[in-house]
Amino acid sequence: MSLLVVGSLGLDDIETPFGKVESVLGGSASYFSIAASIFTDVNVVAVVGDDFPKSNIDLLEERNINIKGLQKASGKTFRWQGRYGYDLGDPQTLGTYLNVFENFDPRIPDEYKESEYVFLANIDPELQLNVLNQVESPKLVACDTMNFWIENKKDALLEVLKNVDILIVNDSETRELGQDSSIARAARNILDFGPRILIVKRGEYGALKFSKKGIFWAPSYPLEEVLDPTGAGDSFAGGFMGFISNEDDITTSNLKRSVVYGCVVASFTVEDFSVNRLAELKEEELNTRHQAFMSLSNIE
Amino acid sequence: MSLLVVGSLGLDDIETPFGKVESVLGGSASYFSIAASIFTDVNVVAVVGDDFPKSNIDLLEERNINIKGLQKASGKTFRWQGRYGYDLGDPQTLGTYLNVFENFDPRIPDEYKESEYVFLANIDPELQLNVLNQVESPKLVACDTMNFWIENKKDALLEVLKNVDILIVNDSETRELGQDSSIARAARNILDFGPRILIVKRGEYGALKFSKKGIFWAPSYPLEEVLDPTGAGDSFAGGFMGFISNEDDITTSNLKRSVVYGCVVASFTVEDFSVNRLAELKEEELNTRHQAFMSLSNIE
Repeated sequence: MSLLVVGSLGLDDIETPFGKVESVLGGSASYFSIAASIFTDVNVVAVVGDDFPKSNIDLLEERNINIKGLQKASGKTFRWQGRYGYDLGDPQTLGTYLNVFENFDPRIPDEYKESEYVFLANIDPELQLNVLNQVESPKLVACDTMNFWIENKKDALLEVLKNVDILIVNDSETRELGQDSSIARAARNILDFGPRILIVKRGEYGALKFSKKGIFWAPSYPLEEVLDPTGAGDSFAGGFMGFISNEDDITTSNLKRSVVYGCVVASFTVEDFSVNRLAELKEEELNTRHQAFMSLSNIE
Repeated sequence: MSLLVVGSLGLDDIETPFGKVESVLGGSASYFSIAASIFTDVNVVAVVGDDFPKSNIDLLEERNINIKGLQKASGKTFRWQGRYGYDLGDPQTLGTYLNVFENFDPRIPDEYKESEYVFLANIDPELQLNVLNQVESPKLVACDTMNFWIENKKDALLEVLKNVDILIVNDSETRELGQDSSIARAARNILDFGPRILIVKRGEYGALKFSKKGIFWAPSYPLEEVLDPTGAGDSFAGGFMGFISNEDDITTSNLKRSVVYGCVVASFTVEDFSVNRLAELKEEELNTRHQAFMSLSNIE
């Protein structure tokens, strides 16, 4: 089935205790689409500037990522500059330059409009609503958001939440949006806003899936090598939505399986800078690690 | 089978965003023995002062906790004063008064010496070695430790680790003892020190069990009500060792089951201050929550 993602393509400058890279491919839509393309075809809508290297475009196209919806604008590409400490936890943002992303107006090409699966990456909730108005009856819509929109565009965000099936956010976003320090209570509050499923990304601790029917936890295999956590969350979402879209199965048990695949895919992202590890991932490596993840909480 | 614990009994003054209590029963041996007594008989070795309330002694005895090894010394009981922030993470220690615990000299009563299962709670590793010299060929020995001993009594601690089967510590202790920011690599280093199993307590994220054969993760059910995290780690150890001791089964699959029970028991401790919730726990509540924990990572 076809999967549509609307988000950012960017160039990142990243520093971790293990190295430093400049102008590497970043942004939610790049991590998402490369992760999802492991499983399925992806239609991407994003905007880049004059300085976006052709090699990045080539990388996407080689993976059968449809870039018909990629807009080229005059100016510089979105850039994020961040630095991680020794614990590889929340990074210090050294600079965020919206550049051409500031005037991003997502237009969905006709050939994308019947996409069955849709992911609205972390962009202004008003743009997310705009996208929802352009697509025709998708089977499943998921979205991301961030603290900035919770604080500054709450009404638009609540409108988005009434119109999506799944919200995918992290621990602190869950607590802030659900207005409770308890993840379990915050999750219950968020489900009351509209989405029937909430997925909480917890980094090295895996991911939690909440619905009114119950809670599922996919733990994450403890990795020996982590170089750069950037993009783990968007890779999770890409693996998750890519797997669902390929299976074309939105039953509870397949959603759980998809959460596990999301964690598996994200575990590769963090093993190298940018999309480097993800882009060279082999099917056998994916299968081996999937087995390791599945055995992690196997009691026999 | 009989289970021996050597640790501290104390009186705690605790403040959390949800309340404040003074002079409540605390200390590693109290949480451990009350947790373990859910499953099995417990022999406790600890020291208390003149001010230790008889009601606390009664509470232990009512649970068939053998207090023959409880020493009464002249002076005040060990006291810990702590305050937790909104996230209920690492507490701020406002005061630690060793009092009679400063001269604690653990003497194992003859009737305890054949205990098959032994837990050395977080005390000076030289005292832990002293205890190991007094017990006769136990089937399984586990111990806890803390950053203070890693930093100040490393040699004695390494000697302990050569003589125990299981080390039970938290994330930061694992990183410090294993000298690596990666939990997976730090765990590998620790297993090289001697213990065949390392269990990493991760609070709301459950517990990891490492051995040379593989990794097991018991995730922890997201709780709606958490009032006071004090004693969760010792309750985990008590539930874990209590379950093993009662089953008298140290196979890998039973050790995994025991890790799950440790998490289940600890999840009750944090729902109220001190040992209040743990001491009133009913078998049916234990079974219901165990089922919830088991279903958490069930994919079907």
